[in-house]
Amino acid sequence: MKKSLMKLQCPLPKFDFDIITLAHGSGGLLTNKLLESGVFSLLKNEELDQHHDGAFLNMNGNIAFSTDSFVISPVFFPGGDIGELAVNGTVNDVAMCGAIPQYLSLSFILEEGLPINEFWDILVSIKFAAEKAGVKIVTGDTKVVDRGKGDKIFINTTGLGHIHPKANINLMNIRKGDKIIVSDDIATHGIAILSVREGLEFETSIESDTRSLNDLTTLLLDKFGSDIHLFRDPTRGGLASTLNEIAMDSSKGIVLQDEAIPVDAQVKAACEILGLDPLYSANEGIFMIFVPDNIASGVVNVLRTTEEARHAAIIGTVVDDHQGKVLITNPMGGKRVVNMPLGEQLPRIC
Amino acid sequence: MKKSLMKLQCPLPKFDFDIITLAHGSGGLLTNKLLESGVFSLLKNEELDQHHDGAFLNMNGNIAFSTDSFVISPVFFPGGDIGELAVNGTVNDVAMCGAIPQYLSLSFILEEGLPINEFWDILVSIKFAAEKAGVKIVTGDTKVVDRGKGDKIFINTTGLGHIHPKANINLMNIRKGDKIIVSDDIATHGIAILSVREGLEFETSIESDTRSLNDLTTLLLDKFGSDIHLFRDPTRGGLASTLNEIAMDSSKGIVLQDEAIPVDAQVKAACEILGLDPLYSANEGIFMIFVPDNIASGVVNVLRTTEEARHAAIIGTVVDDHQGKVLITNPMGGKRVVNMPLGEQLPRIC
Repeated sequence: MKKSLMKLQCPLPKFDFDIITLAHGSGGLLTNKLLESGVFSLLKNEELDQHHDGAFLNMNGNIAFSTDSFVISPVFFPGGDIGELAVNGTVNDVAMCGAIPQYLSLSFILEEGLPINEFWDILVSIKFAAEKAGVKIVTGDTKVVDRGKGDKIFINTTGLGHIHPKANINLMNIRKGDKIIVSDDIATHGIAILSVREGLEFETSIESDTRSLNDLTTLLLDKFGSDIHLFRDPTRGGLASTLNEIAMDSSKGIVLQDEAIPVDAQVKAACEILGLDPLYSANEGIFMIFVPDNIASGVVNVLRTTEEARHAAIIGTVVDDHQGKVLITNPMGGKRVVNMPLGEQLPRIC
Repeated sequence: MKKSLMKLQCPLPKFDFDIITLAHGSGGLLTNKLLESGVFSLLKNEELDQHHDGAFLNMNGNIAFSTDSFVISPVFFPGGDIGELAVNGTVNDVAMCGAIPQYLSLSFILEEGLPINEFWDILVSIKFAAEKAGVKIVTGDTKVVDRGKGDKIFINTTGLGHIHPKANINLMNIRKGDKIIVSDDIATHGIAILSVREGLEFETSIESDTRSLNDLTTLLLDKFGSDIHLFRDPTRGGLASTLNEIAMDSSKGIVLQDEAIPVDAQVKAACEILGLDPLYSANEGIFMIFVPDNIASGVVNVLRTTEEARHAAIIGTVVDDHQGKVLITNPMGGKRVVNMPLGEQLPRIC
C-alpha cells in the first residue's frame, strides 16, 4: 500500500495542542492525553492495553534480544522516515540472529516544539511497519527534552523473538570456502540520505531501501536450516565495516569480487560523481548470508524469487589466509585491501 | 562500597581521544575502539562477548519486558548519575511487574564533545548498579549526534525478567479496603535534582534515593505471594500522578492520610520554602504496594527490617466511592482532591 493511502486511513486525532511541549514528558495529564489519544489508540493490542510499567509476555526457549537507537537526520527522507526505520532496524537485528521477531518496545525522546502532525506521521509509519513485519509493540516510554537539547525525535526500539527452530547462526560456524551472498543492491540507503542532507542536496530519485527482512531470513531458514552459517546486515559503515568486523572476530580472510557486487546504476553514478565508495555506504534493506559453496547458488535462486531480493548475488568467499582482512579483486586481476573505515562518510545515517 | 572507591578500581583505559566525536558513532574503527577498550571490557559477560546484532538468551515461561529512556539533567547529581539511574529505573520497572530482573539492553545517544572521562564514570556506575541489582547487560548500541543536537548523554535501557512464581500483580486485583503502603520517604529524588538545577541551586545535603528495588519486591513476593495486588513506583509526576492513573485505570477511589506519608525533614523544609508539594515530586528509590488490610502491617514490618525501606508506612486506602479520584485527609478532618498534575514541577527529572 502506498504510504499516502495509509495515512488517509489514520487521520490525526483531535489534540488540543499543535506542538510537543515539555509537559508532554512530565508523566502528568498531558503525557496521559498524548498517549491515550495518540500512541495507545493507534498501536492498540492486548499487551499494550495493560498500561503497566512493562509488558507481560510468555516466551519459551531460545530467544534473541536486540536494541537500537535511531537518530537519523532528516527524520523524513526519500523512501521512509525515522519511525519505519526504527521498526525495521530492530526487526532486522533480531532476524539476523536467526530469530523470528515478535515483540518490540518503543521509546521516544522528543524535542520540545516537534509539530504534533510530524509525530503523528511517524507513529503511523511505526504502526504500518510493525504490521508488515508481524511484530507487536508491547511497551514504551516517552520523554521530552528542551528545545535545542535534541533534534526533533530520537527513537529506541528493542526487540525480542524466538530463535527459528532450524537456525544455528554463529560467527564461529563460518568456514574456508563459504560463499558470501548479498540479498540485493548495496549503498542505496546511504546515498538516498546523502541526497537530501543540508549542503549536499542533489537531484535524484534514489529512495532508501528500508524494509523488514524477517520474511526473507525465515524463508531461508525454513529451506536451508543450519546450513546457513551467518546472517548480518551491513548498516552503519556499510559492507566494508561489517565484513572487517566478521573477518577480525572469526580470524578468517574475506575476498570479494568487485564486479559481482550489485549496485543500482543511479547509486553507482552518484557515488562516482561524489567520489564515494559504495562499500562504505550505509544499507538498511539488505543483508549478507554466509553459506557453504554447495548451497550458495540455491540460496541465491530462492532469494531472487522474492521482490525484496531480486538482485541477490554471490559476492565473495571466506579464505584461511589474509586473516582478519577483507580484500577485493577486480576483473583485471588486481587485488586491494578494503580497510575498516575510521569514521563514517556521513554521520547520523540511522 | 563508596562510589569513589569503585572508580579507583576501574581506571580510565588508554584511549587516544579525550572527547566523543561523530566518528565514534559511525560503526567504523573508532566505534570499535570505544566499544572494545571501553564498554565491552568493563561490562564483559558471556552474552555480550558474542558481538552479534543481538544477544542469545534462554527464557521459559512468563516474563516482563520494560523500556525507559533517561534524559536527566544534570547527568551527575547529588547521590547518583544518569548511568546508575538508567540501570535502576528499568530494573525497578521490571520488578514492579512482579518479575525478577535478569537482562538489560543498553543504548547510548552521545553528544559530540562529551568528555571521555565523564562517559567512563557513567559506564562504571552502570557496571556497579547492574552488579548490585544482579542483572546482566547483554546487548547494546552507541550513537553520536552533533554538538547542540543532544545533551551530553541519553541512555535507553530495556529489561527482561521472569515473573516471580508466586506473583500475581495486576491492577485489576486491587479491591475496596486494600491498604496502600509506601516503602520509604517520598520526594527525595525530585528535590535533590531541583537543588542543583540551573537557576534553582540551594544549599542542601539531600541526595537522590536512586536504587534498585528488586530485592525488596522479591522479599515481599517470597513471603506474601499473590496477596500482593499491585506494585508501582511513583517516578515522574510523583505519587499524585501514579495514584491518579491507578484510580482511573481501576475505577476505584483512593484516600490518603496526609500525616502518614513519610517525608524526610530536610525535603519537607525544602518543599515548604519552594512552595512545592512532595506528592508531585519525582521519586526513584521507593515504591507503593497495594495489599489487603489483613497483611498490611505485616508487609510494613518486613519492609522496615531492611535498610532501603526503614520508613515504610501505610499511607492510604482503596475505596469504592470517589471513582477515579485521589483524595487526601488531614488530622483536622479536612479532605481535598489530589489532582493529576498537568505538567511536571521540573522537566527532565529522569
